[in-house]
Amino acid sequence: MSTTPTATAGKGLEGVVAANSGICWIDGEQGILSYRGIDIHELAKNSNFEETAFLLINGKLPTRSELDTFRKELAQARELHPEVIEIMRRTPKQTKPMEVLRTAVSALSAYDPDEDSNEHAANLRKTNRLLSQIPMIIAIWDRLRKNKNIVPADKALSHAANFLLMLNGEKPSETAEKTLDIALILHAEHELNASTFAARVIAATLADMHSAITGALGALKGPLHGGANEATMRTLYAIDKAGADPVEYVKEQLANKKKIMGFGHRVYRTEDPRATHLRRMSEALGKSSGNPKWFNMSRAIEQYMLDEKHINANVDFYSASTYTMLGIDIDLFTPIFSMSRMAGWAAHVIEQHDDNRLIRPRAEYIGPEYPNKYTPIEQR
Amino acid sequence: MSTTPTATAGKGLEGVVAANSGICWIDGEQGILSYRGIDIHELAKNSNFEETAFLLINGKLPTRSELDTFRKELAQARELHPEVIEIMRRTPKQTKPMEVLRTAVSALSAYDPDEDSNEHAANLRKTNRLLSQIPMIIAIWDRLRKNKNIVPADKALSHAANFLLMLNGEKPSETAEKTLDIALILHAEHELNASTFAARVIAATLADMHSAITGALGALKGPLHGGANEATMRTLYAIDKAGADPVEYVKEQLANKKKIMGFGHRVYRTEDPRATHLRRMSEALGKSSGNPKWFNMSRAIEQYMLDEKHINANVDFYSASTYTMLGIDIDLFTPIFSMSRMAGWAAHVIEQHDDNRLIRPRAEYIGPEYPNKYTPIEQR
Repeated sequence: MSTTPTATAGKGLEGVVAANSGICWIDGEQGILSYRGIDIHELAKNSNFEETAFLLINGKLPTRSELDTFRKELAQARELHPEVIEIMRRTPKQTKPMEVLRTAVSALSAYDPDEDSNEHAANLRKTNRLLSQIPMIIAIWDRLRKNKNIVPADKALSHAANFLLMLNGEKPSETAEKTLDIALILHAEHELNASTFAARVIAATLADMHSAITGALGALKGPLHGGANEATMRTLYAIDKAGADPVEYVKEQLANKKKIMGFGHRVYRTEDPRATHLRRMSEALGKSSGNPKWFNMSRAIEQYMLDEKHINANVDFYSASTYTMLGIDIDLFTPIFSMSRMAGWAAHVIEQHDDNRLIRPRAEYIGPEYPNKYTPIEQR
Repeated sequence: MSTTPTATAGKGLEGVVAANSGICWIDGEQGILSYRGIDIHELAKNSNFEETAFLLINGKLPTRSELDTFRKELAQARELHPEVIEIMRRTPKQTKPMEVLRTAVSALSAYDPDEDSNEHAANLRKTNRLLSQIPMIIAIWDRLRKNKNIVPADKALSHAANFLLMLNGEKPSETAEKTLDIALILHAEHELNASTFAARVIAATLADMHSAITGALGALKGPLHGGANEATMRTLYAIDKAGADPVEYVKEQLANKKKIMGFGHRVYRTEDPRATHLRRMSEALGKSSGNPKWFNMSRAIEQYMLDEKHINANVDFYSASTYTMLGIDIDLFTPIFSMSRMAGWAAHVIEQHDDNRLIRPRAEYIGPEYPNKYTPIEQR
């Protein structure tokens, strides 16, 4: 074992392999995303969030009976400890949903019977609970901050439908349920993205699932990660408010060296395969609602960015207009991302715990030369 | 830019440079640790925690007036929002201190006026607050779980002394204050250790200081990281309880393929320079208290491990007996580690935010070959 750094990585570990993983395979050149080897287009077309989560966590598609059991476990886990709700009740109403979610998930560990254990079976139980608790926290926080009553969970509904029920106080339309369900499939996993990598770094100290997920939520909160679809929607709102032409607006932004959010990706050099589905859903919702404004605006920007800048839209770009047309508040976009990505995070934490090694890189030192003298204070 | 992984790192990113940093220089072969180029032995001998924290955060030793201002800022920041205390009051008393600390630090962001900003000056203000708030949370939690009254902060005391006052309800002896102060200097920073790296991965999404520190606390909680000195002390207690010979006990553990905690380090191949000081303090406390039991036991184990196994004691090994002789509960060792490491974490988060790039490595895919067929459920 060497004690001195041997490999100098690109800044941000670009292109560096940090783990072996059997969860997600991406080909950034060809625009392929697959979960456990199954193409994301297949899953978006044929699967549902629960089945996809099972696939990610357990490594294979469930049989009918396995899926029924998993759905039942998720439904049974639709319980939130009253003290965690009390923490939310006492939180100032302007607090960002991602802050509340980070605190609530951390707080949940105190009430989790498996907190102590990183055993595979315990991790699976904690995963099921967190999969169900995260959407509940998001919905309950949104109700509380709007001084609305908390809507009880409906254990008969799907993951997507129960969330929309708890958020809006009424059962969603089939279209809304299906749209969210597909969005959840698309966001569920993406290899060593920053939040998943944070979760693995934390889990690799043999810290527990709640510690890892709390850290992942913190990472997802960042505007360079989960925050990007929120920024996209704020741009669309700004264009709309100014009554501006979207392309002219974007041109001006670029001329002022401002970044257009929702474009480009560290991994993909072609269209983000997730964007394909979100574009389609955004267009469909625009048509069915009779208000294609957000889709049309998005499409114009996408075309310009692709033609002039050769940069593709990423997963965040069309999720912005899609979620907006589902009536979801802008600052819930990232929390919804997290309720989906929880499946991928959990799969990675379990994979890390099952075959662990501490993740501990080195830094290239660029500070004052050693030995730098300790000067007594009166001589400074 | 390449989209496919180019460098295969050792598992756990061993020996891989993940960042340029001017904060800490370590030579693992020679056993050198330095903060901003100043040798840890110089700092342990001449400095104090506040000055060392200033050095880490600001890159240079403070002048007298800068140090006075910094001390005043830290003292003024000895305030904890009542709602965060209320969260602790309502937490089940058996909850681990690191869980409580992780939740409380996350909750604090809701009351931090700079939550939103990653600007350098805002990060410095948040750093000062968290430096003062973390020890308060630890002390208050320990009082609450023991059904004792909360001890108000004394703004005239040093960082170390105020913590011991709030923990024990009485001003510490000079020896206790000095011992803890040196321990805080020694634990304040250690380059890209797992918790610091977690903090940087989170901060690199441009997530805020509280998100990064919350994640770091989660990582430190792991038994392969901060938890090691707690495990060391549990070993010493087990030996004592069994009335066993420490060397025989260790031999038996090793024969049963059990790990002896507090030995070996990913970076050092010689004595951990921090262990030198902790050994000395452990010995001195043993002598002055007339109870050299824990030191003698530790020393015997250290000698055996070095002679027979050629493995050196690390920072955790003698911190266990040192903290125990200061009357500190075993499950507060890691929290105390965190109140010190907060200085290093903050320095790294600020360095990351000031010159940021998303940290996003790749994984080597070892899962089912693509394309793996999506089989309809009735055919599985």
